[in-house]
Amino acid sequence: MTDTIVSSATREHIIGDDRPFTIIGERINPTGRKILAEEMKAGDFSRVESDALAQVAAGAQMLDVNAGIPLADEPALLAKAIQLVQSITDVPISIDSSIIEALESGLAVYQGKALVNSVTGEDENLERVLPLVAKYGAAVVAISNDETGISEDPNVRFDVAKKIVERASDHGIPASDIVIDPLVMPIGAMRYAGRQVFDILGRIRHELKCNTTCGASNISFGLPQRNGINGAFLSMAMGAGMTSAITNPIHEEVMRSVMAADVLMGNDADCLAWIKKYREAPAAGEAGARGRRVTKKRRSRTS
Amino acid sequence: MTDTIVSSATREHIIGDDRPFTIIGERINPTGRKILAEEMKAGDFSRVESDALAQVAAGAQMLDVNAGIPLADEPALLAKAIQLVQSITDVPISIDSSIIEALESGLAVYQGKALVNSVTGEDENLERVLPLVAKYGAAVVAISNDETGISEDPNVRFDVAKKIVERASDHGIPASDIVIDPLVMPIGAMRYAGRQVFDILGRIRHELKCNTTCGASNISFGLPQRNGINGAFLSMAMGAGMTSAITNPIHEEVMRSVMAADVLMGNDADCLAWIKKYREAPAAGEAGARGRRVTKKRRSRTS
Repeated sequence: MTDTIVSSATREHIIGDDRPFTIIGERINPTGRKILAEEMKAGDFSRVESDALAQVAAGAQMLDVNAGIPLADEPALLAKAIQLVQSITDVPISIDSSIIEALESGLAVYQGKALVNSVTGEDENLERVLPLVAKYGAAVVAISNDETGISEDPNVRFDVAKKIVERASDHGIPASDIVIDPLVMPIGAMRYAGRQVFDILGRIRHELKCNTTCGASNISFGLPQRNGINGAFLSMAMGAGMTSAITNPIHEEVMRSVMAADVLMGNDADCLAWIKKYREAPAAGEAGARGRRVTKKRRSRTS
Repeated sequence: MTDTIVSSATREHIIGDDRPFTIIGERINPTGRKILAEEMKAGDFSRVESDALAQVAAGAQMLDVNAGIPLADEPALLAKAIQLVQSITDVPISIDSSIIEALESGLAVYQGKALVNSVTGEDENLERVLPLVAKYGAAVVAISNDETGISEDPNVRFDVAKKIVERASDHGIPASDIVIDPLVMPIGAMRYAGRQVFDILGRIRHELKCNTTCGASNISFGLPQRNGINGAFLSMAMGAGMTSAITNPIHEEVMRSVMAADVLMGNDADCLAWIKKYREAPAAGEAGARGRRVTKKRRSRTS
């Protein structure tokens, strides 16, 4: 039971074992989104704004913000995007860049305790990112690859994660401020990518006592009906101990799997969130098992 | 890696760890189905026939057959239902009754190696059912309750399962012919019912080396959008080691979760079953993550 506390200027959020799963909205990221990249580069942040609001409305408790655009001034764009998102939402932000100057620029303007996304197990990267995380008192996503790349051996990936936790400790960063990404590979290319992640998650939880995250949609790369795979993957990863994911909250099917897994892990007390969402709006054709059907009634709500 | 082999007259089916999950269709059961009960009692088995065909078409690899109707001749009805189902499908059957005479009557007419559903940990029940299982060389579902009822303590439920395995051994029944049902309680009434099952599944797999099953839909009793809970539960239970479930294969959402979990456990080699099912028929609005969309093409199939 480790709590990772992040915050915005006005709101605290806790990533942890015995709490509802944390969805970190992935959409504010120009990688692979040509129109968004062009707009941001030209100073038009309207899509950043609408993506922020839509993701929070869909249930994201945090937002990842990335401004990695080739030939653009990433530190300036990232700071601007973060300030904008903080002005219209109150969710904590994951500041996402592989450029140290952009991370620093984002941290400098950020109000609250951010999640820095990310540090890897490469020595040079560790020695540049960790002092920054320590300086700003942030939390950090630790990605389990190093100079040798991403190992296919889950034990090597675990060892890289362990190394990052130890190195962070040298910088005064506690394990509770490290959120480990065990790296999710496409299941279509690597048959046991799922089992590997589930196994590593157990080791991270029991041996390192860190919270965990991942870029969930990578698991279904190249397959049809990706949301079906992504949703099942998230439920199973939650069962194995994963506590957050950087993913798209707009997909109803994926969010339903996450909410159901919260119920099944006992982290949606009295199933309140589930009942509130589904009691009055069963999907078409969704009678319960054995023909049981929830009566549709309009009630005045107290919450 | 334990294989439980069952068969019909012409087809063998294996329940096991490294294989696609086994769906045992639950529909042929008059409990709570008043019309079906009345029809069966009156000798009309047309609904048994259509339920059998529909469940196999929907992906059930086995069928549960139950004829428990108050004041009816259950042994005769069960035998008749089994003979009918065996005459129109080739999937192995789970012979489902709490009446020893009905189990015997069903086993007597069954062609192949059946799964007997079920034996409990009660001494009297063990001593009546196990000799029958041994006599017919069947496999058996072992339910982890005993004279004291269903314990809320998962360790007690595990101990009951262990007792059944040991007692079965005395009758010459190997652990590979025992499929343990750890008992799934409604999550709406028992907050940690899910975690309990996931934990017991791990112990059964590692310590008893038995396959497992459950009546999956019980988990969502009393909740809205039951299929969402049932599907996530099955994926998570599969991640924790469950190898079969007695459930309704007609629900597309539940079957999708099971198929996705097969992919994620590495048990759908090359994702072939998933791709075959979803490549040409994406559901409406189901674009992949980041707007990726599978091209719809008609192709001649070789399989």
